[in-house]
Amino acid sequence: MQFDQNGSMTKKLTSPARMPERVSSSDWAGLRQLLSDQVIAHLAFPFEGRAMVLPSAIALDGESILIHGSTGSRWMRQLATGVPVTASIASLEGLVYARSGFESSMIYRSAVLFGSCRRVTGPELESALDRLVDRLLPGRTVELRRPTRKEFAATLVLRMEISDWTLKTANFWPEDPESDIAGTAWAGVLPIFSVYGQPLAAPDLREGIPLAKSVAELAGKPVFEPDSSGLRLP
Amino acid sequence: MQFDQNGSMTKKLTSPARMPERVSSSDWAGLRQLLSDQVIAHLAFPFEGRAMVLPSAIALDGESILIHGSTGSRWMRQLATGVPVTASIASLEGLVYARSGFESSMIYRSAVLFGSCRRVTGPELESALDRLVDRLLPGRTVELRRPTRKEFAATLVLRMEISDWTLKTANFWPEDPESDIAGTAWAGVLPIFSVYGQPLAAPDLREGIPLAKSVAELAGKPVFEPDSSGLRLP
Repeated sequence: MQFDQNGSMTKKLTSPARMPERVSSSDWAGLRQLLSDQVIAHLAFPFEGRAMVLPSAIALDGESILIHGSTGSRWMRQLATGVPVTASIASLEGLVYARSGFESSMIYRSAVLFGSCRRVTGPELESALDRLVDRLLPGRTVELRRPTRKEFAATLVLRMEISDWTLKTANFWPEDPESDIAGTAWAGVLPIFSVYGQPLAAPDLREGIPLAKSVAELAGKPVFEPDSSGLRLP
Repeated sequence: MQFDQNGSMTKKLTSPARMPERVSSSDWAGLRQLLSDQVIAHLAFPFEGRAMVLPSAIALDGESILIHGSTGSRWMRQLATGVPVTASIASLEGLVYARSGFESSMIYRSAVLFGSCRRVTGPELESALDRLVDRLLPGRTVELRRPTRKEFAATLVLRMEISDWTLKTANFWPEDPESDIAGTAWAGVLPIFSVYGQPLAAPDLREGIPLAKSVAELAGKPVFEPDSSGLRLP
């Protein structure tokens, strides 16, 4: 990964002031895993003296992320101007019940990505859209007709080059002082999972059309394997 | 809810340019439900010419949200200076399989809150911390010893008054044109749920300490009832 031109600013943004053992700017596999497990990023950018922030689905593509929206979206158009963009992604994976409120915490992975966007046009647009659709709905593009010229024209796809990033992982057992361990409070972890439910056919689905293979492959399964963030023993 | 002083700026931030039927700035019960179902917000604020954004647990308290962190956290200290803060919360609740990539989408609720923070001090601090702990770990404070003076001193609690906000709800069946409905592609919705797993006792838990009631009440249950965002028929 490259660092952007403004090294000192970047360093200020990514060098952790606290708990450095939980923060990485080099664990690219960890970042890729998080972006594979969580599809929603919160995109922040300067707007009239304050920071605006909005959620969006994203798809990792090489060392950049793809974002899409309507050409009619003013926020997408604002992002397309090349303003600095900061993206935040978080995955809450458990509650940590320590013996005090002070030590209570959460199991999570989170990342902050820095960069700016440019509009994807020309021949690159079709493959970028396919990648976005298959990220949101894995295996779906081969089940669908191709987009029309009109649909391409109505879709704004942005590519945000990741100039810098940081990944934070908190997956620790409660860490209580001896005096609290000696007390009567229970301590441990309550995991949180995301799972796909059972498919609901659209009310206007024609009779005789079988469930799509792409949907059948997800139904009833965990959105991601919790193993990817297994607890570390203290 | 009150609007902040700078009406025109606020209007620009919250008046939707597209799909206004999905956006509300008056459905306070809907916003409260979202903040009850999702604990993580992404807090954005201006920093050295760009927008910084970080995830944090939040707790709704009246018409404001509470945030907490370490007094050693520079981002918390930056928020405490009173800079304008924008908070983004999203809940992804399903995948919408339309008959084209263009109409494919997601079922979600999201909110953007505008305001600024002030530090909570004095007698208000203790109840604010209790509220935060019980938001993250429902029913937990009564099972724990009271915080110590040292712990209070090490904790920075911020209150962000919500001066303005917007709530977006997307829970629609696929809306395909007749020509696509006549095709062979399956269409429908695949719900996504969050569920609590089974409790994992801390390795240093002393023998004979029973599972906490607060944990037993969540274990194996959905994090929130999906009914709260039930699909609307087209």
